[in-house]
Amino acid sequence: MDLVPLKLVTIVAESILEKKLVEEIKRLGAKGYTIVPARGEGSRGMRSLDWEGQNIRLETIVPEEVALRILARLQEAYFPHYAVIAYVENVWVVRGEKYI
Amino acid sequence: MDLVPLKLVTIVAESILEKKLVEEIKRLGAKGYTIVPARGEGSRGMRSLDWEGQNIRLETIVPEEVALRILARLQEAYFPHYAVIAYVENVWVVRGEKYI
Amino acid sequence: MDLVPLKLVTIVAESILEKKLVEEIKRLGAKGYTIVPARGEGSRGMRSLDWEGQNIRLETIVPEEVALRILARLQEAYFPHYAVIAYVENVWVVRGEKYI
Repeated sequence: MDLVPLKLVTIVAESILEKKLVEEIKRLGAKGYTIVPARGEGSRGMRSLDWEGQNIRLETIVPEEVALRILARLQEAYFPHYAVIAYVENVWVVRGEKYI
Repeated sequence: MDLVPLKLVTIVAESILEKKLVEEIKRLGAKGYTIVPARGEGSRGMRSLDWEGQNIRLETIVPEEVALRILARLQEAYFPHYAVIAYVENVWVVRGEKYI
Repeated sequence: MDLVPLKLVTIVAESILEKKLVEEIKRLGAKGYTIVPARGEGSRGMRSLDWEGQNIRLETIVPEEVALRILARLQEAYFPHYAVIAYVENVWVVRGEKYI
C-alpha cells in the first residue's frame, strides 16, 4: 500500500469564524475538511480564558505548501484579531491524490 | 515513564458506516476506539462536496501492523464505494500493552 | 514563518473527570485546552468495553516537560482507578510563546 506523507492542519476557533475559515482554506488549496464542535480555554495576548463560548475544531489534510499558506494567512488576518490556535502534524494517507 | 510508540489511525466516514467500521477495526486487531460526531466536505473520485451529511471521526491506537491491515481493508472494501478518508500518525502512549 | 515544535497531549476519559483533569493540566503548566464530547470503547485492566458512556476528548499543546508531567500524573492518580487513555504527538505551532 502506498502511504503518502502530507500535513494535517488543525484550527480551533470561535464558531462564528467557520464560514470564513472554510472559504480561506479552500481558496488556499484545501480539498476537504472535517469540523467538530468544541469548547475550551485559551489565551489571546494578555487576556486568557477569553473564548469559553462555542468553538469549532477544523482539520484539513494538505500538501506542505498549502499548510504553510494557511498558517501564513491565519497569522496575517486572524491571530491579531481573533482567538484562534492552529497546529500542524505529519500524517500518512492512502489515496494521496485526493488531497492535492 | 515508558512511552511506547504506536500508530493512531483516524477514519472520517458517513455515520451510517459506524457499526461496520467498528466491527472491522476490532476484527483486525484494534482494542478500543474513540468516536466524535463530525461534519465536513471532501472529494470522492470526480465528485466533490458529496458528503456534507452527518459523519463520524473514529480514531484508534494500534500497532503498525494493525494500522496497515485497517488501511488495506478500507482501500479494498470502502474507498471504492464510500466517502471515507483515513490517515495515520505517530503517537506515544503510556501503558502500551493495552493496545496490543 | 516560525513554526515551533511542541507536544500535543490528548486524553480520553469519562466526562465526570473533566473538571479534575482541567485543573490538573493547568496546575502542571498547560495554558489552554480543547474539549470535544466523545464516545467509544476501551479496555481497563482485565475488563473491556467498560466505558461506553459519555466521554470527553481533551487536547492540550504544551512543552515536552509539561507533557511528561501530565502523563506522569495520569499514571499515578488516574490510570489505576479510571478508564483513561492518553497519548502524545509532535506538533508545530505558530506563536509558540502562547503555550509556554
